[in-house]
Amino acid sequence: MASEQIGLETHLRSIIPDGTLPSLRQDILPKLLQSIEDVSKVLRNEATVSQVGTANAFGDDQLNVDVLAEKAIRSAISKCPSIVTASSEEDPVERSTSSPSSKPASENEEVYTLAFDPLDGSSIIAPNWTVGTIMGLWQSSTALKQDPSKQIAAILGVLGPRTTAVVALRIPGCQATCFEVAYGSQGEIQVVKPNIQLHEPPFKTRYFAPANLRAAAYDQKYMSLINHFITQAYTLRYCGGLVPDIVHTLVKGHGVYVNPVSEKSKPKLRRLYELLPIALIIECAGGLAAEVETGKSILSREVQDTDERGGLVCGTKEEVELVLKMLIG
Amino acid sequence: MASEQIGLETHLRSIIPDGTLPSLRQDILPKLLQSIEDVSKVLRNEATVSQVGTANAFGDDQLNVDVLAEKAIRSAISKCPSIVTASSEEDPVERSTSSPSSKPASENEEVYTLAFDPLDGSSIIAPNWTVGTIMGLWQSSTALKQDPSKQIAAILGVLGPRTTAVVALRIPGCQATCFEVAYGSQGEIQVVKPNIQLHEPPFKTRYFAPANLRAAAYDQKYMSLINHFITQAYTLRYCGGLVPDIVHTLVKGHGVYVNPVSEKSKPKLRRLYELLPIALIIECAGGLAAEVETGKSILSREVQDTDERGGLVCGTKEEVELVLKMLIG
Repeated sequence: MASEQIGLETHLRSIIPDGTLPSLRQDILPKLLQSIEDVSKVLRNEATVSQVGTANAFGDDQLNVDVLAEKAIRSAISKCPSIVTASSEEDPVERSTSSPSSKPASENEEVYTLAFDPLDGSSIIAPNWTVGTIMGLWQSSTALKQDPSKQIAAILGVLGPRTTAVVALRIPGCQATCFEVAYGSQGEIQVVKPNIQLHEPPFKTRYFAPANLRAAAYDQKYMSLINHFITQAYTLRYCGGLVPDIVHTLVKGHGVYVNPVSEKSKPKLRRLYELLPIALIIECAGGLAAEVETGKSILSREVQDTDERGGLVCGTKEEVELVLKMLIG
Repeated sequence: MASEQIGLETHLRSIIPDGTLPSLRQDILPKLLQSIEDVSKVLRNEATVSQVGTANAFGDDQLNVDVLAEKAIRSAISKCPSIVTASSEEDPVERSTSSPSSKPASENEEVYTLAFDPLDGSSIIAPNWTVGTIMGLWQSSTALKQDPSKQIAAILGVLGPRTTAVVALRIPGCQATCFEVAYGSQGEIQVVKPNIQLHEPPFKTRYFAPANLRAAAYDQKYMSLINHFITQAYTLRYCGGLVPDIVHTLVKGHGVYVNPVSEKSKPKLRRLYELLPIALIIECAGGLAAEVETGKSILSREVQDTDERGGLVCGTKEEVELVLKMLIG
């Protein structure tokens, strides 16, 4: 049965106390969430997806929709004076977002940087599969060489048949929280799941999402893990889009996503634009997000550079621990 | 680069000669394709997906969106006088669609039945993954105990970030064809790929979609097949939605989808509402769609009953042949 829906503003008031980070609550979260709906309109209004003939700074071919999605989010950022810098996977340099005169002056004022991937999942845009937007908001003018606890909010925008988003907040002094929003027919943002928490065992259905499965051809440990999932009757769900694959776990309440790294398969996921926002979301939902190379939490070390990459295992705690045991012993 | 887009009407005129099945060309195909956009609006406007507390005739729980999607397509059917009967996975009995007085009288008039699955992929609606609509149009007042060549059109509606659809036509006396349409911001239907054909070898990237992977735990042949895909560096794409999984193959130009059957895992896919429309689409795109039990074409035998089920292997010819060799020798 449908649960009663709560407006975004009401929900944010209930989780962020009056006087705490007013700009975050009244300005940034509503505007960033609104921009997810703008990105969904970009996709909906482009009947065809095409390469624009350019590449981003990482050498990936850019699509017309990549460029338009970046623009939609930059436009939202420009309306948030306390986001003083931003960088994205399409333009991975932290740049000032506004004229110096509009910058906050007093020490009490809020200062943020946004790190975002405007449109993740380019390989599955053409077949019209669900893709996503990833955002990490840092309470600092830079995300580099910062304690990862400075990342106090993350958003996964889910661009599918509907537009939805999962939001995590870990504000110092407040309870960490994770919730899901959807967009009404008039564009109004409704909180459809006010508290996302991964399930406790026993698990009714167990899901696994094995990224880069080709690596199992030469990585015996990964192959053993895959065999374990199959023989233990896990259900396969792997669309190859990072956002939908992670959000599947959050919505179903169970799942494990593995993106292994080996000598032959170099890490692909960007720490700043992909791994850290996802780790914050998963941890706020009661799960674990770990480096598949070391077993340490993704959030245990600073980001040194916008192009840093890594592997990932994340999801239900019990499953992540099993994967780490099987992959790194 | 984006190809020039063609309106639906112009395209249909170019592939269906004047005087041939005018009702199909002017009435049925435009209206059924319009109903796909109506189904997409159902999904977009329902912020939450919930069970309505009823089950369809097959015992599946019904969702609010299942009921609304069925209604949208029934409404389109009611505007097509030459569709004289229809049945769906939600209501699997071929029923008359209109009052007897509105039925065609002359022998030359066109008479059709539509078999459809209004919303396929219920398990992935909650996480907001792409789902689909499946339609098979038969040139007869019944699809049961008919030569499968009577199914002259099939549509896969893809309900994702955009709305798109793949259409196949195999009209006696005309060249078989498969094309993709998208919906403009004003709802206008544009042909974005006028001729979908699966690629010839050599294949740049090879995709596989293994349904019911859990069966590999006790089906040694299926496990060997999965190992073959992995060691031969195929790319995994399996979202668990029949329409997006099949459309991935069509849009990428390569792929193989396998849904095995064994004593322990009974066939699940409905022949009338799923297998036969998909087989027509895949064959019109130059691929193969075979019964995984016998190796015979899905379209080689009549449908006896609306609840008949089977396994499936379909996609690129070379890959289907390999799968059949490995699974049934």
